[in-house]
Amino acid sequence: MFLLGVLAARLNLEFRGDPERKITGLASLASAGPAQLSFISTGKYLPQLLQASAGAVIVSLELADQCPVDYLISDDPYRSFALASQLFDNAPKPGPGIHASATVSPESEVHPSAALGPNTVIESGAYIGPNVILDAGVYIGRDSRVGEGSRIFPGTVLYHDVYIGENCLIQGQAVLGSDGFGYAPGVTGWEKICQLGGVRVGDRVEIGAGATIDRGALEHTIIEDGVIIDNQVHIAHNCSIGKNTAIAACCAVAGSTKIGANCTFGGMVGVAGHIEICDNAHFNGKTMVTKSVSEPGSYSSGTALMRSQDWRKSAVRFSQLDSMHRRLTALEKK
Amino acid sequence: MFLLGVLAARLNLEFRGDPERKITGLASLASAGPAQLSFISTGKYLPQLLQASAGAVIVSLELADQCPVDYLISDDPYRSFALASQLFDNAPKPGPGIHASATVSPESEVHPSAALGPNTVIESGAYIGPNVILDAGVYIGRDSRVGEGSRIFPGTVLYHDVYIGENCLIQGQAVLGSDGFGYAPGVTGWEKICQLGGVRVGDRVEIGAGATIDRGALEHTIIEDGVIIDNQVHIAHNCSIGKNTAIAACCAVAGSTKIGANCTFGGMVGVAGHIEICDNAHFNGKTMVTKSVSEPGSYSSGTALMRSQDWRKSAVRFSQLDSMHRRLTALEKK
Amino acid sequence: MFLLGVLAARLNLEFRGDPERKITGLASLASAGPAQLSFISTGKYLPQLLQASAGAVIVSLELADQCPVDYLISDDPYRSFALASQLFDNAPKPGPGIHASATVSPESEVHPSAALGPNTVIESGAYIGPNVILDAGVYIGRDSRVGEGSRIFPGTVLYHDVYIGENCLIQGQAVLGSDGFGYAPGVTGWEKICQLGGVRVGDRVEIGAGATIDRGALEHTIIEDGVIIDNQVHIAHNCSIGKNTAIAACCAVAGSTKIGANCTFGGMVGVAGHIEICDNAHFNGKTMVTKSVSEPGSYSSGTALMRSQDWRKSAVRFSQLDSMHRRLTALEKK
Repeated sequence: MFLLGVLAARLNLEFRGDPERKITGLASLASAGPAQLSFISTGKYLPQLLQASAGAVIVSLELADQCPVDYLISDDPYRSFALASQLFDNAPKPGPGIHASATVSPESEVHPSAALGPNTVIESGAYIGPNVILDAGVYIGRDSRVGEGSRIFPGTVLYHDVYIGENCLIQGQAVLGSDGFGYAPGVTGWEKICQLGGVRVGDRVEIGAGATIDRGALEHTIIEDGVIIDNQVHIAHNCSIGKNTAIAACCAVAGSTKIGANCTFGGMVGVAGHIEICDNAHFNGKTMVTKSVSEPGSYSSGTALMRSQDWRKSAVRFSQLDSMHRRLTALEKK
Repeated sequence: MFLLGVLAARLNLEFRGDPERKITGLASLASAGPAQLSFISTGKYLPQLLQASAGAVIVSLELADQCPVDYLISDDPYRSFALASQLFDNAPKPGPGIHASATVSPESEVHPSAALGPNTVIESGAYIGPNVILDAGVYIGRDSRVGEGSRIFPGTVLYHDVYIGENCLIQGQAVLGSDGFGYAPGVTGWEKICQLGGVRVGDRVEIGAGATIDRGALEHTIIEDGVIIDNQVHIAHNCSIGKNTAIAACCAVAGSTKIGANCTFGGMVGVAGHIEICDNAHFNGKTMVTKSVSEPGSYSSGTALMRSQDWRKSAVRFSQLDSMHRRLTALEKK
Repeated sequence: MFLLGVLAARLNLEFRGDPERKITGLASLASAGPAQLSFISTGKYLPQLLQASAGAVIVSLELADQCPVDYLISDDPYRSFALASQLFDNAPKPGPGIHASATVSPESEVHPSAALGPNTVIESGAYIGPNVILDAGVYIGRDSRVGEGSRIFPGTVLYHDVYIGENCLIQGQAVLGSDGFGYAPGVTGWEKICQLGGVRVGDRVEIGAGATIDRGALEHTIIEDGVIIDNQVHIAHNCSIGKNTAIAACCAVAGSTKIGANCTFGGMVGVAGHIEICDNAHFNGKTMVTKSVSEPGSYSSGTALMRSQDWRKSAVRFSQLDSMHRRLTALEKK
């Protein structure tokens, strides 16, 4: 619970209203009650603002006049709401200490302020920094490192030689440092190429539940500062992902691809291997990125949703497209 | 092992044949031997029925005459076969009790009939109902609940404030309650929106191995009664999935989307965020659901399988489709 | 570290250069220094070869003359490099023994040369062969088997009745033997079909992190010798995958599909259920395999990458393709 005046001070925002008002949580504009804080980021929600019964609303200067309840003025209400959500964060935060069931190598280094949950395993040579939280069942392989203030949720596995920077959040059941998919055709089958590189993750990186990031074949797979990666994303060996790039759920990036900074990927995008994507490239959901991209902008592939009976006809014609093109050209020549 | 007469009684079906026949298992019509039960659901398999050497076959009334072996008559042989499979279920079922290696908070409530396997972890405030089975390594976060008769297979993680109803089955390595992928553009990078909602799962829900269901940003992510979700499906924050909807493997549903009841999704379907899907909508495998769907029926997208050499030509023409259309229109005007 | 002469002997290759040269690791041609071994597999990298400062390079006989540094001659430099990577493998290999925190059923059989890491669980009837390594948190269900020389990385779950052959590698957080997605439409919802079969995995199979392989409904799901499967692949119940087939990341194969030997699947390929794929069929990334394939060759589906503004126009025209085709035919008739 925060008093409105305190909340405004914490968010560094001017406000209009009762500084003693008790704010106990956050809610959407449509559902917020008198003890809840909400926000309006675009004029699209103006009708909801006019009806608002929230305790207070974070608004832009332009919309402030029309707010029927207390408000806080922000030049970016959505970002201010994000900061407010951090004040109301309700995720359990275990205190420092090593659970009795943890297995910690005497040759590892664990900072006394770190929290190691039940059944965590820390191998030799590993380093766990100050204020790190490793939840139940997390595995940290040999010589791997987790930097100050990072948290790893239950079940996640870091193989050997995987470095996580500071203030990262890795959700449950992720895997970092698994072998890349490297094989040479052999005499009687595939010959494994042992994956000798590691993984290097920068600061303030977030990685989703069940995501997998393979170790490099010779050098490291690299995730730069500020990258956000959603659930079940796959990053193959030798990739590098540039600063602040955002990758939504279930994307897959094939091996040795270099992705620039500030890119965004919608869900289920597939990126071919051995290509380069420049900064500020954006890909709509389910796009197949078949080649390098050297110009910023928005990219797509695939076809849109149709009734199946209509889709079947279009799909048949798609297979005839080259023939249709030839027939069209022939007609034009007449 | 069941005697045929007993089996028929348990399935509540009339039968013709030797009530003392020993049935030790189930098999497909083509491979079933004299101690096995099989079924025929459509006339398509009639040739196999005529050759059947099964101990008994579940048949419809119309096909009963043509069955060369003992039979049970059902108005829905496939459903009766499902019920029979439950009688022959061979999955190990650990008895009540808490394994010595489990970590159970004294502030949690675990029903004495529940089975908690090796290395399970139950946090404070959690509730584990009667006859629940939590297999090895399952993690139940703070204040989460697992209702009577539900089973959770090894390694699955429930974060805090995740409720599972009664008689649910959750396969291994799933994650429920991980943070939704919510961020606001900040001054120097992404600003995290803490995910303050939980997950609410109804009764008789099944969730596949490696599936991830994110917690809500402000309210709960909701999975209604009877929903079945296959392996590696991703359900993003704030979604709701209506009763008895079936979602096959590797689908992804983006944030805040509302899906109705009795829908079916083939594998690898992607559903955009912030849309609504009505009841009884059906989506073929790999479809990209780019917009709301308000009418029941079958939907698709994408293109069908082609030889790569032919596909390349069609793919090039796809990129020229608008130009082809203009050329066609110009010809028509002549 | 190897002396060059020893390395050449171990790889069974002729070499030219200083047999006493110390080789401490592997690197790409562009970055290798004087203590590192590299390779050149195609003439495409000839400019890099001419500039090479590697300690030695694995080359084909044809390129040997142009190598400015010591070299080893191979009729398949890429395969020789794979073999060299195995000599330099740096993955930690725990020695024999059962960790104090492991839970091993007295009714299981664990070979004394096997290594069982922290928090591993072995259920009754299970068999763990010679020189097997089970890393931390691995779960082996009732009556399951892991053959000689296989390694399973942290967190992976084998349900009951799952057999792994010899010399397999299974990465972390994989699930083998989870229930197939089988249900019959019931009276008030879905009726579960209990999955009574198991999983049979051959020798020298590799399976990626987070992959899921469901158990069969009646018979077994089968992965034959030498198959390589990448991260987050899903193999549904009753499938069989033929020898040495390679399946890249995030593919999904629906139920009861039979895939032949020596096939390759790019990433994110989806394969429909109840179909057959012949030997030596190859599928480009993100292809939707909608039907059986009876002829070897390369197959594709989907559309290529476009600027979103152009893509939107093509996508609209795709939905009009059948109408365009009719208009074209009408013009031709005039």
